[in-house]
Amino acid sequence: MLLLHRAVVLRLQQASRLKSIPSRIYIQACSTNDSFRPQYPSLTFSGDNSSTRGWKVMGTLLGLGAVLAYQDHRCRAAQESTRIYTKEEVSSHTSPETGIWVTLGSEVFDVTEFVDLHPGGPSKLMLAAGGPLEPFWALYAVHNQSHVRELLAQYKIGELNPEDKVAPTVETSDPYADDPVRHPALKVNSQRPFNAEPPPELLTENYITPNPIFFTRNHLPVPNVDPDTYRLHIVGAPGGQSLSLSLDDLHNFPKYEITVTLQCAGNRRSEMTQVKEVKGLEWRTGAISTARWAGARLCDVLAQAGYQLCETEAHVCFEGLDSDPTGTAYGASIPLARAMDPEAEVLLAYEMNGQPLPRDHGFPVRVVVPGVVGARHVKWLGRVSVQPEESYSHWQRRDYKGFSPSVDWDTVDFDSAPSIQELPVQSAITEPRDGETVESGEVTIKGYAWSGGGRAVIRVDVSLDGGLTWQVAKLDEEEQRPRKAWAWRLWQLQAPVPAGQKELNIVCKAVDDGYNVQPDTVAPIWNLRGVLSNAWHRVHVFVAP
Amino acid sequence: MLLLHRAVVLRLQQASRLKSIPSRIYIQACSTNDSFRPQYPSLTFSGDNSSTRGWKVMGTLLGLGAVLAYQDHRCRAAQESTRIYTKEEVSSHTSPETGIWVTLGSEVFDVTEFVDLHPGGPSKLMLAAGGPLEPFWALYAVHNQSHVRELLAQYKIGELNPEDKVAPTVETSDPYADDPVRHPALKVNSQRPFNAEPPPELLTENYITPNPIFFTRNHLPVPNVDPDTYRLHIVGAPGGQSLSLSLDDLHNFPKYEITVTLQCAGNRRSEMTQVKEVKGLEWRTGAISTARWAGARLCDVLAQAGYQLCETEAHVCFEGLDSDPTGTAYGASIPLARAMDPEAEVLLAYEMNGQPLPRDHGFPVRVVVPGVVGARHVKWLGRVSVQPEESYSHWQRRDYKGFSPSVDWDTVDFDSAPSIQELPVQSAITEPRDGETVESGEVTIKGYAWSGGGRAVIRVDVSLDGGLTWQVAKLDEEEQRPRKAWAWRLWQLQAPVPAGQKELNIVCKAVDDGYNVQPDTVAPIWNLRGVLSNAWHRVHVFVAP
Repeated sequence: MLLLHRAVVLRLQQASRLKSIPSRIYIQACSTNDSFRPQYPSLTFSGDNSSTRGWKVMGTLLGLGAVLAYQDHRCRAAQESTRIYTKEEVSSHTSPETGIWVTLGSEVFDVTEFVDLHPGGPSKLMLAAGGPLEPFWALYAVHNQSHVRELLAQYKIGELNPEDKVAPTVETSDPYADDPVRHPALKVNSQRPFNAEPPPELLTENYITPNPIFFTRNHLPVPNVDPDTYRLHIVGAPGGQSLSLSLDDLHNFPKYEITVTLQCAGNRRSEMTQVKEVKGLEWRTGAISTARWAGARLCDVLAQAGYQLCETEAHVCFEGLDSDPTGTAYGASIPLARAMDPEAEVLLAYEMNGQPLPRDHGFPVRVVVPGVVGARHVKWLGRVSVQPEESYSHWQRRDYKGFSPSVDWDTVDFDSAPSIQELPVQSAITEPRDGETVESGEVTIKGYAWSGGGRAVIRVDVSLDGGLTWQVAKLDEEEQRPRKAWAWRLWQLQAPVPAGQKELNIVCKAVDDGYNVQPDTVAPIWNLRGVLSNAWHRVHVFVAP
Repeated sequence: MLLLHRAVVLRLQQASRLKSIPSRIYIQACSTNDSFRPQYPSLTFSGDNSSTRGWKVMGTLLGLGAVLAYQDHRCRAAQESTRIYTKEEVSSHTSPETGIWVTLGSEVFDVTEFVDLHPGGPSKLMLAAGGPLEPFWALYAVHNQSHVRELLAQYKIGELNPEDKVAPTVETSDPYADDPVRHPALKVNSQRPFNAEPPPELLTENYITPNPIFFTRNHLPVPNVDPDTYRLHIVGAPGGQSLSLSLDDLHNFPKYEITVTLQCAGNRRSEMTQVKEVKGLEWRTGAISTARWAGARLCDVLAQAGYQLCETEAHVCFEGLDSDPTGTAYGASIPLARAMDPEAEVLLAYEMNGQPLPRDHGFPVRVVVPGVVGARHVKWLGRVSVQPEESYSHWQRRDYKGFSPSVDWDTVDFDSAPSIQELPVQSAITEPRDGETVESGEVTIKGYAWSGGGRAVIRVDVSLDGGLTWQVAKLDEEEQRPRKAWAWRLWQLQAPVPAGQKELNIVCKAVDDGYNVQPDTVAPIWNLRGVLSNAWHRVHVFVAP
């Protein structure tokens, strides 16, 4: 609200200067739509518009923004002719300079002027700029109301070209050709294999991450598994029995449902890259998400195959149905002690947030190992066996391990470090974003915090001065079971901006119930694979004058 | 060896200047012992001594130091008359300036000149300066050899005054009057209650800390328990039975023996004090020690009293037999889930390193909770009960908790933080000591590392340049059981001293198998009670020119 207030007041102040972007947008939106290119050279300003804006300021401050926006646009709907736009044309309108366009069904809308009025915040609407609204409205059910559609109708500028609806030709020689369609909000780090993270604004919008924007970390093409013929092979214990389980068989085991946060070992790798080059995808803060997973307990399935906990160390090895051109499947393992411990709640999950697993997340069955690095939650699970040694998979033995900053690719000895299982305490700021300009007065800081091994996050400290002084953030109220705090905690802090401050160095750090803390800086935990990047998260912002 | 070499060469260089302390020592040691005060004003130098010293340099370099030292002192034994010294006189001779005296039985020795030749290092012998050798020889059996006694005999200067053997009168109104006698090597932080730590040189001398120098953290006077009438009361479960166990009864449970490191939550508090004042004892790096503990498993005893693990959270509350003047006993609790888990190996210990528990460590029975803060290992255990809530003891609810650096005594809310149970990863440098001068050429750095919750230490990084570059230390080879790494790892690093370096900022940091790391600096983890001080340990040393 404060942000909106400031933006509108700024516009009024700047109206006669005709230089600011908001003024341009406003005037452009009131022009005819015959030629919807920026009209920098011939901007004009009308006193009538100014008084309308005055109403808008007051109305918005009273919470009536949407209603007044409606008034503001009655004129436009009447002027609208049914223009036809291609998808390509729409996709080039993604900024205030070009105009911000979106589609819903076959209709095209210019929402340039509405962006700042969007009740969910401008940045959320901007995620859909240049493309369809449906994937976002699917995430946020609040949009499925008649007054929202009515409001949007006022911004209609035309229709989509019907020919654009033809599906693109599939390139069959491409092993990734059969990968599923992804949500446009995802920030893609790699297309093949597909690796993408939700943008920070959406990441902490919900405690449970909606399936379509749950971060995706694939190592190989997504297999297309027929659920009717799918079988999960469990190699039996000596004296026990091997199992070949259909999906129905798995459903016949007692069903457990738990909320678990998954995090990639490479989350926040991009910060490590800033210290020195590393090998790996440039994950920002979004390689982490939370879902409710349901399925059979691994311990129940292993018990049926004749396993019990033994004194000698052993490992449960998982193989995925995804494989590389040589036929090598993705694989990983966890200690048998964790697999057999009912309190560790390791699942063979077939549901994610009440739905069958999406293909990108392991349809029809994946492992969920609460408190453990994402790499062990093997997707498209095909085979489970118990071995005296860890999985011989590349990803278990030659990847996903941490090393000293002094170790480089010439000196690294992968056998010298244990495979990552439990992850250390982590936190990050999702709002505001680095480089953003925040209001003077008060700033709202949001983020997430999580720790591995079921350790609960007990506190998040936030600093506005780079770590000299700290304030305690407010943690969400979600239930945290002792020793089974598998899910993150979202947090926020409303803090006064110290008077006269032009910039803020915002920092967060979390503490878990083992009183583990995050390290201050990145360089001393730098490692050649860029994993385990959990130093204090830092965001530098400017304060609006 | 290098140190010795340097010291001796320095002496030769400085011999004619007669100003350095080593020269003074040397000359003093060669004077008669009639008046054993420092002789600064009338020092003389003899060419003969100089040539003897030349032999010594060579001899020492060949590993024959002790033999030559023997030669060097034949003269003195012959000159010795049986002088009588009081204990007080002996205790005033603790430095090169005053002479360094020790006693063995009723004999008094001046070992000033031998200190630098001591095979275990000068600093170890200096721990006994001004007092008896017996407590130290008891720790290090290597001394119990005839040639050691023969060598020592050469330094004899007289006998102890027989009247000094009368025991001091006991002050019966003092609640601490009955506390046991302690080892003189312990560095005392508080006499009443007794709190003391071993000096760093001794701390990492052995993987298993000898009982007499195991750090002692008492909250109250030490109770004097009669083992014959001792009974441990276990409040029975509903439907179960209460138990009153004699020591013999406890011995009838299966006996388990495990190596466990105990650490006080306040270890390294003195570094926090340097940031800002805290409330608590000034522990340096020695509030941590390791022993082999033997006893009955708590889970077996609780099972006999009718307890089993239940779904609802519960706590096992311990009460000590130590109490304050109001009769309030020391108390603490741990979650029932930990107590009942055979894998957590919680003991009711009656042996420490193969001996009955020493009185300072809980005779006849204490709790040992592997991986958990020392404060929960209740000593002189009197009573065990299971409660729906944590112990209401002051030490569970109003102490041993961590807070944000922003929290002070006006704002602290003890209910807002969980009681400390598992401790975070920790490490410290024990050699060299802060402010010491080390050899150019190569430096040996030693220390310990440990983590809570059974997490194994997997790596210790050491820096000589304040944390800019790192080297990986060599960890001891002691067995580390997965998930049950209850004991510390000792480590060392031999590193070349960069040429031309006049000072070194030595830093260590450890990583555990959950890839938890220590924070870089103290200030951001500062808390008003000065607990959980686990930032990188830093030692500043000078390099000999």
